[in-house]
Amino acid sequence: MAEQKKMVEAITPMEEDFAQWYTDIVKKAELMDYTSVRGCMVIEPYGYAIWENIHDILDRRFKELGHQNVSMPLFIPESLLQKEKDHVEGFAPEVAWVTQGGNEPLQERLCVRPTSETLFCDHYARIIHSWRDLPKLYNQWCSVVRWEKTTRPFLRSVEFHWQEGHTMHETAEEAKAETEQMLRVYAELCENQLAIPVIKGRKTDKEKFAGAEMTYTIEAMMHDGKALQSGTSHYFGDGFARAFDITFQGRDNSICHPYQTSWGLSTRIIGGIIMTHGDNDGLILPPAVAPIQVIIVPVAQHKPGVLEKARELERRLRKTFRVKVDDSDQSPGWKFAQYEMKGVPLRLEIGPKDMEKDQCVLVRRSDRRKTFVPLGGLEQAVAEQLEAVRGGLFQKALERRESMTYSVRTLDEFREAADSKPGFIKAMWCGDPACEEKLRDVAGVSSRCIPFEQEQIADTCVCCGKKAKAMVYWGKAY
Amino acid sequence: MAEQKKMVEAITPMEEDFAQWYTDIVKKAELMDYTSVRGCMVIEPYGYAIWENIHDILDRRFKELGHQNVSMPLFIPESLLQKEKDHVEGFAPEVAWVTQGGNEPLQERLCVRPTSETLFCDHYARIIHSWRDLPKLYNQWCSVVRWEKTTRPFLRSVEFHWQEGHTMHETAEEAKAETEQMLRVYAELCENQLAIPVIKGRKTDKEKFAGAEMTYTIEAMMHDGKALQSGTSHYFGDGFARAFDITFQGRDNSICHPYQTSWGLSTRIIGGIIMTHGDNDGLILPPAVAPIQVIIVPVAQHKPGVLEKARELERRLRKTFRVKVDDSDQSPGWKFAQYEMKGVPLRLEIGPKDMEKDQCVLVRRSDRRKTFVPLGGLEQAVAEQLEAVRGGLFQKALERRESMTYSVRTLDEFREAADSKPGFIKAMWCGDPACEEKLRDVAGVSSRCIPFEQEQIADTCVCCGKKAKAMVYWGKAY
Repeated sequence: MAEQKKMVEAITPMEEDFAQWYTDIVKKAELMDYTSVRGCMVIEPYGYAIWENIHDILDRRFKELGHQNVSMPLFIPESLLQKEKDHVEGFAPEVAWVTQGGNEPLQERLCVRPTSETLFCDHYARIIHSWRDLPKLYNQWCSVVRWEKTTRPFLRSVEFHWQEGHTMHETAEEAKAETEQMLRVYAELCENQLAIPVIKGRKTDKEKFAGAEMTYTIEAMMHDGKALQSGTSHYFGDGFARAFDITFQGRDNSICHPYQTSWGLSTRIIGGIIMTHGDNDGLILPPAVAPIQVIIVPVAQHKPGVLEKARELERRLRKTFRVKVDDSDQSPGWKFAQYEMKGVPLRLEIGPKDMEKDQCVLVRRSDRRKTFVPLGGLEQAVAEQLEAVRGGLFQKALERRESMTYSVRTLDEFREAADSKPGFIKAMWCGDPACEEKLRDVAGVSSRCIPFEQEQIADTCVCCGKKAKAMVYWGKAY
Repeated sequence: MAEQKKMVEAITPMEEDFAQWYTDIVKKAELMDYTSVRGCMVIEPYGYAIWENIHDILDRRFKELGHQNVSMPLFIPESLLQKEKDHVEGFAPEVAWVTQGGNEPLQERLCVRPTSETLFCDHYARIIHSWRDLPKLYNQWCSVVRWEKTTRPFLRSVEFHWQEGHTMHETAEEAKAETEQMLRVYAELCENQLAIPVIKGRKTDKEKFAGAEMTYTIEAMMHDGKALQSGTSHYFGDGFARAFDITFQGRDNSICHPYQTSWGLSTRIIGGIIMTHGDNDGLILPPAVAPIQVIIVPVAQHKPGVLEKARELERRLRKTFRVKVDDSDQSPGWKFAQYEMKGVPLRLEIGPKDMEKDQCVLVRRSDRRKTFVPLGGLEQAVAEQLEAVRGGLFQKALERRESMTYSVRTLDEFREAADSKPGFIKAMWCGDPACEEKLRDVAGVSSRCIPFEQEQIADTCVCCGKKAKAMVYWGKAY
C-alpha cells in the first residue's frame, strides 16, 4: 500500500552537503513544496502551523504594546514608490510589475509591494493632523514580493510572508525607543521561544535598509557558521515624512513632521529554526512553535487497552499541550523515525508493560533522553520536559556560537579566520565603508552588525590601522 | 484643539441616499480609507479587527472539522490558469497581469490570483497518490485580485481578503457532503454570530462559479431590499482533477480522479453587516465580532472616584468581554454619539449617582433600551444584554426580509413587484436559462438561488408558462 511504501528515508548528513541536508529536511518534514511559479512555494500544513504559532506569539505581544493591525493594498503605483529617493533605488530593481489589468494596459505601472513604507506614508499623510493623532502604531501580516534570482525555501523566495510594523511618533526619541523596543521583542521571541541565541546590534550604513537612518538587527548563527539576519527594526527620522508631506500641528501649534519606524520578521525564521536546531535525523522544533508538542506512540497497540489508554492520555494532555496519538498501523519504529524527522519535541510511549506499572516513557527529541513518568504526574512531567528541551536547545546553540566566534586583531588573522574557520569574526573597525568593502573583497565576509555589547579588542581598525570606532561582527550570511 | 474640532457629524439618512449613507458609515466609523491605488483600500484598525474576529470564529470551526491552513503562491502562470477551459473563460478577463520582474520582461505572464483552484490542483497533483492520501482538507487566508471596473468599499474591490477552502475527496458523495457542510458553516456564522438571516440554496447554471458543477450560496437581504451573496461553496466533480491529471490508486487498485470542492467567504461580509444592521446614527455591530463590545462612559468624571470606578469595572469585564473606558476629556454626549457611530453594542454609563446606588446603566445600541444594573451582577447582565442585542438584530432583520419578500405567479405580477417593491421575489421557474435572461431584461433582476426550502407557489414557470421545476428567489444584487 502506498502509505506503507512511503518509508522514512535517511537524509543527507549535514557534514556531507549542508545545502542538501537543508533541502532534504524541508521536503521530508513536509514543510513546503515547490510550485510551477518560479521562486514561490507552497507552505504545507505542517510548515504553515509553525508560522501560525509564531504569528500568535508576536501578534499578542504587539497588541500588548499598543499596536493595531491593518491591511494596506498589495500594489504600489510607480509614482508612489519613487517618492523617497534612497528607497526606490534599493527596491525598484527587484520588484514585479503589473502592467495590464483585464484586457487593458495600465496607464501607470503598479509594483507588487516589496515592503509597504510608501503605502503607510500615503495613508498617514491623510490621517495625521495633530500631535493628538500620534503615535500611530500599525502593523500588518501579509506577503511581499522581491524578484530574487536565486531562491531557497524559506531563506530567500520571490514571495514571502512576514509582518511589517510601521509607526509614526511625535518625537525622534519616541521613535528611536520604539525601534529599540521592537528589536527586543524579536530578540525575546528568538531566545525565549525559538531557543535561538541572537546578537543584537546596528547595521553599518552600507548594510542598512533602503531609506532608513538606522537599522537594528538580530543575527543568529546557523550550524554551518553562517549568519542569518533574523529580524530588523528601522528608524527613519522624518525622511519619508518630508518626502510624503506628512505634517501635524505640534503642542506649540507649529507644523512638524512626525518620526517614523518600521520593523519586520518573516518566514525566513523557519529556515533559521531548521539550521539552528536540526540534526541528521531531521528537524528539531522548539516546543513554543511545534505544531505537535507531544506525539503519543502506542507500543503493542493490538494488545487490549493500549489504544484506549493512549487516547485517554491524549485527552488529558490536550487541555494544555498540542498533542496527537499516532494509531496508524505503522510499526512503532517507523513512527519514532517519522516524528523525529518532523522534529516533534517529545515522544510519549505507552505499552502493556508501562500500563502495568502505571507509567509511560517520555523521550526528548533534542538529546534522546528517556524518562519514566508515573501517569499521576504526567502533565507536570511533560511541562518540565518541554522546558528542558527549550533550555537544552538554547544552551547548545549558544555554546556552538561561542565556540565558532573568533576575535582577530590583524588583517592576516582576519583572512585566516575567514578562510579556514566557519563562524563569526569579531574585529575593530574605523567606520569607513572602504574598509568594509575591502574585507568583503579579501575575506568574502560582510559586516553583520555593530553589537550593542561592545568589546575593546584593539584600538585600531583591523583593515586600515586607523583609530577604531567600534567592534563589529563579520561573517558569511544567508 | 484638533481632537475637539473633530465633531461627530451626522451621516446622510439612508432614505435620502442609501449609497451615500453606506459610504458615510464606512468612513466615519473608521473602517477603511481610500488609497492612491485604484479600487484598493486600507482596512483601518477598527475595520480590520472585525475581520480578525470573523477569522477567529471561522478558523476555529474549520480546524474542528479537520481542515488545515496552507499558503499557496500569489501568482498563477498563464499556462496554469488556462488548464481548465470554463475557469479561464470566467476569470481571464478580470485579472491583473505581471509582465516584468525587476528589469526583465517575463517569458510567461503571471496573473495575480483571482482565486486559487489552479494552484491547489497543481499541488494536489504532486501529493495525491493513494486513496490513503484522501481527503485533503486545505484552506488559506489571503487576499485575491479581480480587476473590477466599478468598486465600492468591502462590497466590490480590486483586492479583497477572504479564505478559500479547497478539498479533494475519494468519492463524489463525500465531496458533495463537504460542499453542503461548509455552506452550513457559513450560514451558522451569519445567523448565530453576525445576526444576518440568510437563504441557503443552489445557484442556477448561469450564476454558478466558473468551472463548477454546482454552486451553493447564502443570500442575505440588505436594508434597501437588494441581495448580498454572502458566501459560496462549490462542487467541481472531477473536472479540474481531469484537467490537471490528478489521480490516485483506489481501494480496488484502479486509477481514479478525486472529487473536489472549494468555498469562500470574504471581507464583503463586513459590507453585509453594515447594510443589514446599521441605522441613521451609524454602524450597529453584532457582539460576536465587535472590536469593542462594551464602551464604558464615565459621567461627571471629574467627581472623586468616578474614573477609578470606571476602570475597576473595565478590569472586571475585561476577563470576559472586549471592553474599553473612554476617559478622554470629551463630553459624555459626544462619546455617546461617537460610539453609536462605531456601532458598539453596549454602553455602560457610571456616574456619582449610580455609585451611590451601587449600580450602573447599560444601554443597547440596537434599540436604545436602557437597564439599571446592580454592580454585583454586572457580568451576568452584560452577557444577557449582549445576547439580547444579537437576538434583537436577527429578529429585526428577519422580519424585514419577510416583509420585503413577494410571491408572484404571473409575469405582470413579477414586473410590478420588481419595479415598485424593493426586496426578494419568489417565483416558479422552468429551468430554462432563456427565461432567466428574459426576467433580467424585463425586470432587472437576477436569480439569487434555488432555495433548499422549496414552496410550490404554482405549477408553471412565471416567465414562459411551461411546467415549473423549482421555486427561485429573484432580486437585484450587490
